[in-house]
Amino acid sequence: MSKLLIVGTVAFDAIETPFGKTDKVLGGAATYIGLSASQFGIDCGIVSIVGGDFPEEYLKMLNAKNIDTSGIEIVKDGKTFFWSGKYHNDLNTRDTLITDLNVLADFNPVVPQNFINSNFLMLGNLHPAVQMSVINQMETKPKLIALDTMNFWMDNTLGELIKVIKKVDVITINDEEARQLSGEYSLVKAARKIHEMGPKYVVIKKGEHGALLFNNEDVFFAPALPLEEVFDPTGAGDTFAGGFIGYLASTRNISFDNMKRAVIFGSNLASFSVEKFGTERMENLSKEEIQNRLQQFKELTQFEIELT
Amino acid sequence: MSKLLIVGTVAFDAIETPFGKTDKVLGGAATYIGLSASQFGIDCGIVSIVGGDFPEEYLKMLNAKNIDTSGIEIVKDGKTFFWSGKYHNDLNTRDTLITDLNVLADFNPVVPQNFINSNFLMLGNLHPAVQMSVINQMETKPKLIALDTMNFWMDNTLGELIKVIKKVDVITINDEEARQLSGEYSLVKAARKIHEMGPKYVVIKKGEHGALLFNNEDVFFAPALPLEEVFDPTGAGDTFAGGFIGYLASTRNISFDNMKRAVIFGSNLASFSVEKFGTERMENLSKEEIQNRLQQFKELTQFEIELT
Repeated sequence: MSKLLIVGTVAFDAIETPFGKTDKVLGGAATYIGLSASQFGIDCGIVSIVGGDFPEEYLKMLNAKNIDTSGIEIVKDGKTFFWSGKYHNDLNTRDTLITDLNVLADFNPVVPQNFINSNFLMLGNLHPAVQMSVINQMETKPKLIALDTMNFWMDNTLGELIKVIKKVDVITINDEEARQLSGEYSLVKAARKIHEMGPKYVVIKKGEHGALLFNNEDVFFAPALPLEEVFDPTGAGDTFAGGFIGYLASTRNISFDNMKRAVIFGSNLASFSVEKFGTERMENLSKEEIQNRLQQFKELTQFEIELT
Repeated sequence: MSKLLIVGTVAFDAIETPFGKTDKVLGGAATYIGLSASQFGIDCGIVSIVGGDFPEEYLKMLNAKNIDTSGIEIVKDGKTFFWSGKYHNDLNTRDTLITDLNVLADFNPVVPQNFINSNFLMLGNLHPAVQMSVINQMETKPKLIALDTMNFWMDNTLGELIKVIKKVDVITINDEEARQLSGEYSLVKAARKIHEMGPKYVVIKKGEHGALLFNNEDVFFAPALPLEEVFDPTGAGDTFAGGFIGYLASTRNISFDNMKRAVIFGSNLASFSVEKFGTERMENLSKEEIQNRLQQFKELTQFEIELT
């Protein structure tokens, strides 16, 4: 069976949207990636760090989803990473209110022995030096390494980021980040420049406008499902990435045609994630619901036209 | 053979984009709609008005594309409608610099006798009273009436606009206009409210983010083709509408499945229109180029996943 190793934050989030607000709830990139990828019945494990304030019930919930949490270091006298943000009315933009790194400030990731031969590796959004450290701890080169990052690391640690980008097969970033990283406004040109930095596959996430998958001259587009109500976009990009790599890991097939399916599954899972606050929807999601939504994606995008 | 009647502006445009600027060139909604629809080998005619300054060579060019211009009134001592605009760097927003209505200020449309039984009618963006007058002149009810409009008419002539919207089968508007018209931010909810205003089909144009087609609970999405370079977005929405209704008219089939194909052809033609300034690309476009791009649209959107 495929093994997927995920590195990323496990955190507390406090979220405010036009529809309400939460107290500190479970969040973090690795959490969303794990909950999404685990839908595909693979072995996955998380490498992360939390404080003594992190509830054991959260770890148990992850374990119940077949997510190995032995790589989540618990710093007894430390506090868990905390992020708080407020979304604007259109839900496309948000202000960060609080970022308390806490235990994340001194995070030295340690990959558990039973995951050093994982064939799939997902580097969630974190300091590029942490991402690089995890790559270096792998005993065998994974079949596929995917990396997510954000503008913060482009602003502050560009040199280290460029080095780790060089080592990965897939990069997933949003449209603004792709423009910043490449210096190109056109996403077609941006993807080409990012290919030159290393990744053979470039996934550009456009939020409610879907996602583009580039592999040199090949390009595929997965729309976001038009929803009546987007409740909380937090974690949608990570859920997308988790669905993408979870599907690839479960099928052990990294052809371009299979990657097309993987971005459809990524969009599929992200469309659930935004329906409730935090991780709530992802914690309560059935295979049947995913299959039904896959049918909706087909109806949304598939057409028949004869070429003449 | 199907007959398509188009009402809309025939105009001079002066356009400035980050890539350059034009003097007064051929423009106008009906011009773009006509050039796009005429790709499908149907009989089409334009109802519009121009001044004595409008070059005969433009009319001859339209005639050469099998577009009947007998419904374009020429006011010898009047001047043609003139619009001038400047696009911002991202090409998604623009400032209108000049709007000289000229002969358009007193336009009383007259549908030529040979088009009063047209089975397809496209009401391009114009004063809703002009759109209504054209509907009233039709001797037989067309098989399909489509309407395009813009925020200007929502701001200034909402009552008249609502009346004409009630009479049409399809409305094509952009996302911001759909939100303004419906008072709903979610496009799913916006489309539902617009359905209640009359149109059975609601097409929401999202520019570089594609277009959504709604028919009650059915929804279909056509992406815009990711392009290396967008040179001039002027007329892209009208070109989309022309491709949409031109395809429907040529196939005489207004089923939802055929409308899916129609929005793909609309996106297909719009992707050419933006490649050069003004109408230049649409004036020089071959069936073979359209077929090749259709193949690109298939590769961009089609996938195979077995439902389990």
